[in-house]
Amino acid sequence: MSEVRRDPIIGRWVIVEEHDKSWSPAEYEREPRVQKQGAVCQFCSGREAQTPPEVDAIRPGAYAPNATGWLSRVVPNKFPALRIEGELDRRGVGLYDMTNGVGAHEVLIETPDHNKNLADYSIEEVVNVIKMYQNRSASLARDKRFKYVMIFKNYGQSAGASVEHAHSQIIALPMIPKYVAEELEGAQKYYDFRGRCVFCDMIQQEYLDQKRIITSNDGFLSFCPFVPRYPFESWIFPKDHGIDFVTMQDKEREQLAAILKDVLLRIKICLSDPSYNFYLHVTPVDYENPQSYHWHIEIVPQLTRIAGFEWGTGFYVVRTAASAAAEYLRGAAS
Amino acid sequence: MSEVRRDPIIGRWVIVEEHDKSWSPAEYEREPRVQKQGAVCQFCSGREAQTPPEVDAIRPGAYAPNATGWLSRVVPNKFPALRIEGELDRRGVGLYDMTNGVGAHEVLIETPDHNKNLADYSIEEVVNVIKMYQNRSASLARDKRFKYVMIFKNYGQSAGASVEHAHSQIIALPMIPKYVAEELEGAQKYYDFRGRCVFCDMIQQEYLDQKRIITSNDGFLSFCPFVPRYPFESWIFPKDHGIDFVTMQDKEREQLAAILKDVLLRIKICLSDPSYNFYLHVTPVDYENPQSYHWHIEIVPQLTRIAGFEWGTGFYVVRTAASAAAEYLRGAAS
Repeated sequence: MSEVRRDPIIGRWVIVEEHDKSWSPAEYEREPRVQKQGAVCQFCSGREAQTPPEVDAIRPGAYAPNATGWLSRVVPNKFPALRIEGELDRRGVGLYDMTNGVGAHEVLIETPDHNKNLADYSIEEVVNVIKMYQNRSASLARDKRFKYVMIFKNYGQSAGASVEHAHSQIIALPMIPKYVAEELEGAQKYYDFRGRCVFCDMIQQEYLDQKRIITSNDGFLSFCPFVPRYPFESWIFPKDHGIDFVTMQDKEREQLAAILKDVLLRIKICLSDPSYNFYLHVTPVDYENPQSYHWHIEIVPQLTRIAGFEWGTGFYVVRTAASAAAEYLRGAAS
Repeated sequence: MSEVRRDPIIGRWVIVEEHDKSWSPAEYEREPRVQKQGAVCQFCSGREAQTPPEVDAIRPGAYAPNATGWLSRVVPNKFPALRIEGELDRRGVGLYDMTNGVGAHEVLIETPDHNKNLADYSIEEVVNVIKMYQNRSASLARDKRFKYVMIFKNYGQSAGASVEHAHSQIIALPMIPKYVAEELEGAQKYYDFRGRCVFCDMIQQEYLDQKRIITSNDGFLSFCPFVPRYPFESWIFPKDHGIDFVTMQDKEREQLAAILKDVLLRIKICLSDPSYNFYLHVTPVDYENPQSYHWHIEIVPQLTRIAGFEWGTGFYVVRTAASAAAEYLRGAAS
């Protein structure tokens, strides 16, 4: 029989299949992979003029901004969800609170090479991507209008990627988004009650149980969470609570790059290059309770469609147990 | 510029495009409609033996259970997310709470006719569907193990429908799902503070503003919510707080059938027969605070893909303003 599990932080319930009856990777439908079309891609090297002017880049030589020669490059999103201009204007309309859509929405073009994706990069190339994440986070946090910087990646059509050239997105928001706020609150409650970080306890439990661990290195651990929302959902945590995402240096950056590449490659091999999303859950700008929160990356392969039951309830049905998913991912040669 | 709006009940933030810059129905991608294949459908009349034995049905003549002659018919789901057998067994595993997967998962085969869907039914046929929703809700609520009965419908592939013959699903759960719990709590807080139902206030504001109303009749109102998560999201509310879903009688049932058919037909016409989900948000079994909650139906056309930003934040980006969506839906001849 399936199990019903409750997330200890925000209280979400999930129905998870038993280990023995878990769906294998082959049992999920896969979308057809579209042929890559580099000929007209505006993110490719040599077409810098087709994007808005860059806000940051890694350029090892003495190249000018918006010329070729970059390794990775950040530009404003041409179709932003939020716009950077203007002051915040908070209002009420009857029952409702609202504000104008002030924020930043940037695109990190991760590589000049149209045919590569994150799982295939060298560690050095992944390090460059993480550096850009850090730079933009630090820079946007200095803008007093913003309370949260969200970094995420959509890969493949089912994951909502509209451009196939490898890219990530960075959004700065004038408020803390709901899921993050729930995690912060839940973690703070746990801390108030037990005096410990809930994520540190979770990491310890994963080490004790072993069976949901995918891989690890000196600085980081990756596992399939006990209460997943999606089959093969995979999380990456720094082992040490004290490592800050934005300020971490070379050693941790390389460890993170190594484990991110490792996990993405396992997902690619194990699940036949599925669409996926990942996003960073970090603390808000100037957060006052860093002792209770532990930043991490959540990776979500897109293998199923969300249907009415999930929309209506926030109650997820997951057909592969976390322990079974981790076993498949551990077994994927990389 | 887009607006950032906050849901007054559960605190979700949403970025909504301005009215003038809203995407029209034609700007959303549509999935190809698959040809209906009735030849081997196990939900069709005459193939009753291929489903598990029925638990309820509307049979106007003196037909036996599991014979032909039914108008709509409820059977257990062959691939249930939860199983009806067994006692609840609540446990803790380290940090985590869990229970075994006890629950009910039923399928309502809405019509014997393979080629019809809800928007095309006669009012009488929709009334039969609602009667079955009510019967199953009442029956499952008598099982002391269950705290919540969730009714929903997935229509079309993008909405997660795996069977094309028109059907709805009924799930009885041993706990209140998170989204519903959040709504109940938010509504109770509003009630404690103001002494009024937040949904009644919302209905009043919609009447004052007018511009988000899609349609109404004597008993029910449908509007596009001020804080949608999805473009063309449409809600249906009973105008009178005192109408209970499970016990409502002929008059209200017919009014609900009429407005549900009307709204679904407008969505079908306006958005070229899109995939959609709808679900009922009703009070839990034996709920103690019915004064603060107001049951309703939420209809979500599936026009966009949820991507990393939404997964990571619970923050939705909606490219069509609620007022623009309502205008399109009002204009759809029906």
